[in-house]
Amino acid sequence: MVGIKINHQQLAKAMKVSDIDFLLIVLVVNLIKNLGHRYGRVIDAVSMAAKFTVYLTYLEEGKNLRRTGFLHHVEPRRVKEIVSEFEALVENGETLHLLGSVEPSYLIGFSYIWAEKFPMHPGESRLKLFNLTMSERLIIEASITTNIPKCLAIKEEDLHFLIKELHEKSQASLPLEKRIAFSDALGEHAKFRLLESGTVQEVKLAQGPSAYILAKTDYSPRDRQARIHMMIQDLTRYFEGMYAWVDEEPEVMRGIETLGILPENKDAAFQELDQLVRDWADKYHSESATNQVALQFLLSRHMDILQI
Amino acid sequence: MVGIKINHQQLAKAMKVSDIDFLLIVLVVNLIKNLGHRYGRVIDAVSMAAKFTVYLTYLEEGKNLRRTGFLHHVEPRRVKEIVSEFEALVENGETLHLLGSVEPSYLIGFSYIWAEKFPMHPGESRLKLFNLTMSERLIIEASITTNIPKCLAIKEEDLHFLIKELHEKSQASLPLEKRIAFSDALGEHAKFRLLESGTVQEVKLAQGPSAYILAKTDYSPRDRQARIHMMIQDLTRYFEGMYAWVDEEPEVMRGIETLGILPENKDAAFQELDQLVRDWADKYHSESATNQVALQFLLSRHMDILQI
Repeated sequence: MVGIKINHQQLAKAMKVSDIDFLLIVLVVNLIKNLGHRYGRVIDAVSMAAKFTVYLTYLEEGKNLRRTGFLHHVEPRRVKEIVSEFEALVENGETLHLLGSVEPSYLIGFSYIWAEKFPMHPGESRLKLFNLTMSERLIIEASITTNIPKCLAIKEEDLHFLIKELHEKSQASLPLEKRIAFSDALGEHAKFRLLESGTVQEVKLAQGPSAYILAKTDYSPRDRQARIHMMIQDLTRYFEGMYAWVDEEPEVMRGIETLGILPENKDAAFQELDQLVRDWADKYHSESATNQVALQFLLSRHMDILQI
Repeated sequence: MVGIKINHQQLAKAMKVSDIDFLLIVLVVNLIKNLGHRYGRVIDAVSMAAKFTVYLTYLEEGKNLRRTGFLHHVEPRRVKEIVSEFEALVENGETLHLLGSVEPSYLIGFSYIWAEKFPMHPGESRLKLFNLTMSERLIIEASITTNIPKCLAIKEEDLHFLIKELHEKSQASLPLEKRIAFSDALGEHAKFRLLESGTVQEVKLAQGPSAYILAKTDYSPRDRQARIHMMIQDLTRYFEGMYAWVDEEPEVMRGIETLGILPENKDAAFQELDQLVRDWADKYHSESATNQVALQFLLSRHMDILQI
């Protein structure tokens, strides 16, 4: 059966969501589908962010449990639990982990651990762990791109061993109560993600178990990773700036222009805008100014969904 | 005891959060503290957005429960539950509710219900429900601003009655399983929020119970509400645009300029930027273009927190 072509905007529209609900959907859909975080992890992370908020109010309100509870409609007993949890973290100088990273921890560093455990030495065959005749080996090797990391092809059980190693390594950096035990389901999920992203490729052999090869050095390419990091920083800055704009802080200005641009004018328009903004910044920048401002701009396709 | 002056940026920095975690914190802190959503409601809303994501994948993957479960590391049995829940919503043409509204439902429309239940007719005293002597009444009336809604001052039990009415009204629009029963704790919480926001004011009388007056017609002023709506739309558009930028869609450009502006140049710089952007849009806009683009820009204080 083939899936239907539908995106989150269409489904959200069909379900008549409000605009703030749509904002949450855009965030969560992308955390899960584009960045690959597990369903349960995203919910835990937001729950931790909500606890962070309660602890912040507690500090602001002179450590008044009852008032904090009132402000958030949380029982004082629950506030007390949250406060203890956060005080322990702060006192031990521990890091607060929500998602922790833009990519799931059990998938980061996968290629390093493979290269470390199953290196391919000069002159060795990539398929040395498989019991193949010379001609079988040559035929298969010819079908594999050469431009891939120098690591041995491995069997399914080795792949599971690597995923397990990686999971345990990533867990070791977490506080005890945050750690989750490795399970077959988690292993299967990680394997699925690695295959889906093209990091790992399965090569079916004429007989016996498949060979798995490392096809990329990273779960996501380095330039994409860099863009994701930039996106996260831009989004955070934009969030903070817009909240300040709602509060009418004096150093904030927001604007939006929608326009139709003919395809043949697109490049010129984009370049000109880039230059206009640079020239403006050069003109007004002063080394002796104490307050720094940031001008963010984004040109993108105009969406109709927002006019629900 | 006085609360310490601390903000979410400082606390997040002290707890060494990663950049994606900080993004979640900025979102959740503001949903709870600025927009006044209940702690538990925010967690429920995100959990619903995560279920939305699972349902979306299910549709995309040709209604394959097992594959959807793999992709999200959720048990097929759980996927099935989620699918049933969403199919029922879609088939009945129901609205998907997460937060539902930028403001908590039990606080919206508060002033309307007060005006409806306790109107103040021409010539009537605002304090007619209180047993006061003429001089007592005149002294108190003189201390109340006149520029407030024409409603009677009420006693604490009436205030609770209004909050309860409002809660039940807002619940009636929700599907049965989403409804939450009214409780004293919820009532107290709503009262607290109404007093905190200045919507309701308590007037202590020399003897007997306090009088409560309606001091504003809305939980938040109308222009602030309009700004909040604009913020939500801008944030959503920015989110979608940045995700498209990560995927290198051709019609997206993002940029950032940081600069120091001397206070005496601020107004001129802001005005000039506004004009530059308008002129640019006028120059390149074509009525015959089929694709609309949106240029969003935001000037705000440059934050150091992002360089954690």
